[in-house]
Amino acid sequence: MGKYNPANRCAAGAARLACLPSLTRCIVKNADLLLTNGVFLTMDEEYHVYSPGAMAVREGRIAAIGPQMEVEAGFQAVERFDCGGRVVIPGLVNAHTHAAMTLLRGLADDMRLDVWLLGYMFPVEREFATPDFVRLGTRLACAEMIRSGVTCFADMYYFEEDVAAATAEAGMRALCAQTVLKFPSPDAQSFEDSLAASREFIKRWKDHPLVVPAVGPHSPYLCTADMLRQSAELAAEFDVPLHVHLAETALEVENSRREHGMPVIPYVKKQNLFDAKVLAAHCVHIDEGEMRTLLHYNVGVAHNPSSNMKLASGFAPVVKMLETGLAVGIGTDGPASNNDLDMFEETRLAAFIAKGQSGMPTALPARMALTMATRLGAKALYMGDRIGSLEPGKSADVAVVDLSTLHNSPSFSHSTDALYGQLVYTAHASDVTDVMVSGRWLMRGRALQTLDEAELVRQAREVAKRIDTFLIERETSVFSKLVAIGGATEGESFEVQVKVRLADREGVVRALGAEPFSVLRARRYREYDTYFVFDDPAQGRLRYREDEFVGEDGEVYNVRYRLTLTGQARDQSYAASILVSRSRFIAPATHSLRFYREYFQPAREIEIRKDRRRWLVHYHDTEFFINLDQVSQPKLPGYFLEVKSRTWSRIDAENKAKLIVEMLKDLGLDTAQAVGAEYVQIADPPA
Amino acid sequence: MGKYNPANRCAAGAARLACLPSLTRCIVKNADLLLTNGVFLTMDEEYHVYSPGAMAVREGRIAAIGPQMEVEAGFQAVERFDCGGRVVIPGLVNAHTHAAMTLLRGLADDMRLDVWLLGYMFPVEREFATPDFVRLGTRLACAEMIRSGVTCFADMYYFEEDVAAATAEAGMRALCAQTVLKFPSPDAQSFEDSLAASREFIKRWKDHPLVVPAVGPHSPYLCTADMLRQSAELAAEFDVPLHVHLAETALEVENSRREHGMPVIPYVKKQNLFDAKVLAAHCVHIDEGEMRTLLHYNVGVAHNPSSNMKLASGFAPVVKMLETGLAVGIGTDGPASNNDLDMFEETRLAAFIAKGQSGMPTALPARMALTMATRLGAKALYMGDRIGSLEPGKSADVAVVDLSTLHNSPSFSHSTDALYGQLVYTAHASDVTDVMVSGRWLMRGRALQTLDEAELVRQAREVAKRIDTFLIERETSVFSKLVAIGGATEGESFEVQVKVRLADREGVVRALGAEPFSVLRARRYREYDTYFVFDDPAQGRLRYREDEFVGEDGEVYNVRYRLTLTGQARDQSYAASILVSRSRFIAPATHSLRFYREYFQPAREIEIRKDRRRWLVHYHDTEFFINLDQVSQPKLPGYFLEVKSRTWSRIDAENKAKLIVEMLKDLGLDTAQAVGAEYVQIADPPA
Repeated sequence: MGKYNPANRCAAGAARLACLPSLTRCIVKNADLLLTNGVFLTMDEEYHVYSPGAMAVREGRIAAIGPQMEVEAGFQAVERFDCGGRVVIPGLVNAHTHAAMTLLRGLADDMRLDVWLLGYMFPVEREFATPDFVRLGTRLACAEMIRSGVTCFADMYYFEEDVAAATAEAGMRALCAQTVLKFPSPDAQSFEDSLAASREFIKRWKDHPLVVPAVGPHSPYLCTADMLRQSAELAAEFDVPLHVHLAETALEVENSRREHGMPVIPYVKKQNLFDAKVLAAHCVHIDEGEMRTLLHYNVGVAHNPSSNMKLASGFAPVVKMLETGLAVGIGTDGPASNNDLDMFEETRLAAFIAKGQSGMPTALPARMALTMATRLGAKALYMGDRIGSLEPGKSADVAVVDLSTLHNSPSFSHSTDALYGQLVYTAHASDVTDVMVSGRWLMRGRALQTLDEAELVRQAREVAKRIDTFLIERETSVFSKLVAIGGATEGESFEVQVKVRLADREGVVRALGAEPFSVLRARRYREYDTYFVFDDPAQGRLRYREDEFVGEDGEVYNVRYRLTLTGQARDQSYAASILVSRSRFIAPATHSLRFYREYFQPAREIEIRKDRRRWLVHYHDTEFFINLDQVSQPKLPGYFLEVKSRTWSRIDAENKAKLIVEMLKDLGLDTAQAVGAEYVQIADPPA
Repeated sequence: MGKYNPANRCAAGAARLACLPSLTRCIVKNADLLLTNGVFLTMDEEYHVYSPGAMAVREGRIAAIGPQMEVEAGFQAVERFDCGGRVVIPGLVNAHTHAAMTLLRGLADDMRLDVWLLGYMFPVEREFATPDFVRLGTRLACAEMIRSGVTCFADMYYFEEDVAAATAEAGMRALCAQTVLKFPSPDAQSFEDSLAASREFIKRWKDHPLVVPAVGPHSPYLCTADMLRQSAELAAEFDVPLHVHLAETALEVENSRREHGMPVIPYVKKQNLFDAKVLAAHCVHIDEGEMRTLLHYNVGVAHNPSSNMKLASGFAPVVKMLETGLAVGIGTDGPASNNDLDMFEETRLAAFIAKGQSGMPTALPARMALTMATRLGAKALYMGDRIGSLEPGKSADVAVVDLSTLHNSPSFSHSTDALYGQLVYTAHASDVTDVMVSGRWLMRGRALQTLDEAELVRQAREVAKRIDTFLIERETSVFSKLVAIGGATEGESFEVQVKVRLADREGVVRALGAEPFSVLRARRYREYDTYFVFDDPAQGRLRYREDEFVGEDGEVYNVRYRLTLTGQARDQSYAASILVSRSRFIAPATHSLRFYREYFQPAREIEIRKDRRRWLVHYHDTEFFINLDQVSQPKLPGYFLEVKSRTWSRIDAENKAKLIVEMLKDLGLDTAQAVGAEYVQIADPPA
């Protein structure tokens, strides 16, 4: 099954073409289709170019490819396709994407990764990602990819079986990985669910001619060690690929070092991840030792130039990875972080970035970039035997490109490099005119053959409208935004509370040590509160609270972060400024203050810092919290005593209010000294 | 002349629109054209968006812009244009290009900057750049730019008057800078010529409605200090801009520090460059102090993302420049280093790179990127009062973009950011449907109105064919390639030469100190020769020679680099291996060995190193050079004596050959010991 060699001619004079072993005898053979009059860039190991060339297709595979005269002499075909002098290349391989996210493209840009992901992608997916959504999004993606010359892609998403079905219907080829996550996802309540779903999916699609099913443990940071292990075992059991994000950001590597004592690649290796045929997306932050590990385990890598820049993940060491010998393909990543599926743009960027980053304009030349987008991508997806170059025996997956358009003019032919250069540096996705997968036309003369483009655009518009409505409603409500990022537990709590100002605290501390008080627990901590205030007071105030617990020795032994959304309106007030306030929402604050600031976009912020001594006491058979606060920001003279108790009924609240009035007397204080305001109101009095 | 404000209504109920002062009275006014039913992104300081909006055009200028109902109530127009819900933006400003280089796009890629420039661009321009070439290239560029929504560009090239004429004919707006260089260019034999041409050009075009003439001293490294000064004076005299490349590469800055003791910006400031209204392309390698200098002098900056990556110049500090307050526009640079004129791609890349480089996905958000491509670009070109935003009084320069195409689907509207994001991250140049400059349609429904696209493509193809022929011919000849990079002087020299092997050198050195020898000069140096050998022996061998001159004290006091192309064939040989060889070509080697290696692409290389003592002697009234060599690479035992003399006639050569035979006897040597081979032949004997 050799390459075409003009010296290999058989006696009868007919060409001995590069062809299938079964077709090598020198008689005129039948083919289903003959593509003629094209410039064929085979992208094979020797980079053969046939101009004018021809290609014979039989049963979806390339039966022969070579100089036009010789292929025409060797084959007769039912159908002929005149390439009109255009360039024929192997269909491009998009080595990493989340196809259905076409429906989320442009939803949110220019944001921090966590705000983007936790504030927008995940909440919208929780609300909208259904099998129908996934099918529509995948169809839209297939339409866009076919238009831009892509014939195969590697996917990872939810309801992956629907991705597979939509892809197969569109006639495209794909590696489809069912996502496995450590938290509930739109298609699985637990890890066990998603692994079981992956198993069933793999079983059902294992022998499909176009779809290669796979398991997709999202990443080491969104999977437990056990999930990585079990995913690898599943993939190995069925000999299917495993698709994963590895070392995408510096933070991920930093966290891996801190949590596991090693960077990402050694960590996942330790979990036996590489027992499977791994396709690793990103690999932005890996060193040469890790590259050698990846090579040793034959790991395929997907480089995602646009996404890595747009999400500011960094510049992947592509030149080094290629030098190491890794099969590095090129991917668009999901269209929500790109924001398109344009492999022409990605291929150009791969070459551009390598040059810009290395300071060497000779780095990653055009031919190599195109190799990544075709042959190396196919290899990274473990499909190198079937696709990625135009060679006899491989599937007839091709894209026809018109390089005679205005922005491609003129063309130079003094060197074959100019042809690769033109495809990579000048050609646009819109120059693709015809696309074929497995011998079936998916686009002819720029018209899609398997998908109704106008209908897809119409349906996508409907979905976008619904998402817009969801987001507009959410954006108007701090409450909804808090719900949207998850983790927060809704709960209404009523609190009975009084606050009294006092000049010194010794009297109170002494009184608490004696009857009728009985101290159950005593604590000391420093509280740092940041209140987000919004233009519309009805939104309430959101408090980001950081508590540093201070031990007997004066050392901080614990820190707690909490978010609390409090309604502006007082719900009920009793005698002596004893309040009942309703905390509408309390949640652990798992992200940084900066995250919440960017996400909630408050109109103003108010900071309050205090040193607090806190006692849980029994007083006349009732539990109360007593806080003795010294407020340093804003600087308030003296001390504040707060008495608080949670309550779930109005009658209980009234009883407690009466007890508090008594208690203040026992502490030598007067209800007349009560302050009818929260600290935030003292710090920021209403205008 | 305020922005539209719904509160500003006049008594009669008609809208008081953002409009020209002369049109503010509340009566229905006449307009030449009314654009309706569009989403108008004004890109003004307050980023007004009118959806649905309308715009009234009168005498090429924007008479009013605002909500559709209000504009329609205020104006009646002869012509109406329904934007069909598409997005209307200010025409994009390409802040730096060499438009006519469309004709050289894809000519050579993936090369070192010097090889690309000195080996390809300059030689081809020397051969092909004529007024016709420039007009055709500019027309081709205008066609491509109009197609991608560009309405104005800043150019620098040769025969700039032809650029101006072609641009004006196409109806586009441009800043056209006549190149000033320190070496002869296609349009000027000397600096004085080009400055005089610039003056005439400026005089003739100063008041043109579309073209702003300018002077273009190429860069501080390709201009002398005097040229920079005189260019600035000329620009200041006529109050026209000065277009220049500044701090494009780290090497440029390094050289500036070495040669002038300061980086590029202070150096050009010292030459009073900033007396002119400067538009500085690139500014990749400048620090914050230099940015403040640029700001102080109101310098406009053109950022060129693709070119800076493709030529590996680096990543410009765009975010810092914007923070400093500089007007930073976006340019494509010439299409030979991009390889297109796609401002959508450049704008996207500007945003992408800023994020990737800073590690902040919030850096350079979409709206800011689009501002650079419009309003800031206009400001950088000193046209901020006329173009760059859609505001009353400004020129009606607009692009209409269809964001309903497949790769743009779906669109979100929950935030106005989504619209800017879509234009920057998702939209392609091919989504532009209509373009207008000064109220004149240059493209309608994707059909160019002022240029014959098919004819341009055809003519460009003809030029490319001629360039291909030139390059193919050149590529086949080492000689032509050497000529092409310039600096080499052709000269035929005949050399009489003998080489004798000897075991030790003491006898020779002693003999030279006595009669009949008289030593005129003695030198010692180390010679490092690298021979490039080509597959075709007829090409000759090219020697890259590095001589280290060693003084009495053993220190190297001078280094010389030379290139010599020697024909393989011996021209004539005399008795006792006394040769006459013809050195066809000698040139100073001003570039590195690596440059020549990449440029000449030899099949093999041979290295020879020797320690040489060299005497110029008088011997029987004739001058001879005597070399006493010890060859260390390849390691050759003993010493070699060479006797050489240049000659220009065969008779002289024969006489000298006889003298050499005698001389050898006087030196106690035997002509029988003569070696009939050059060192390179000894090192690399023929197979």
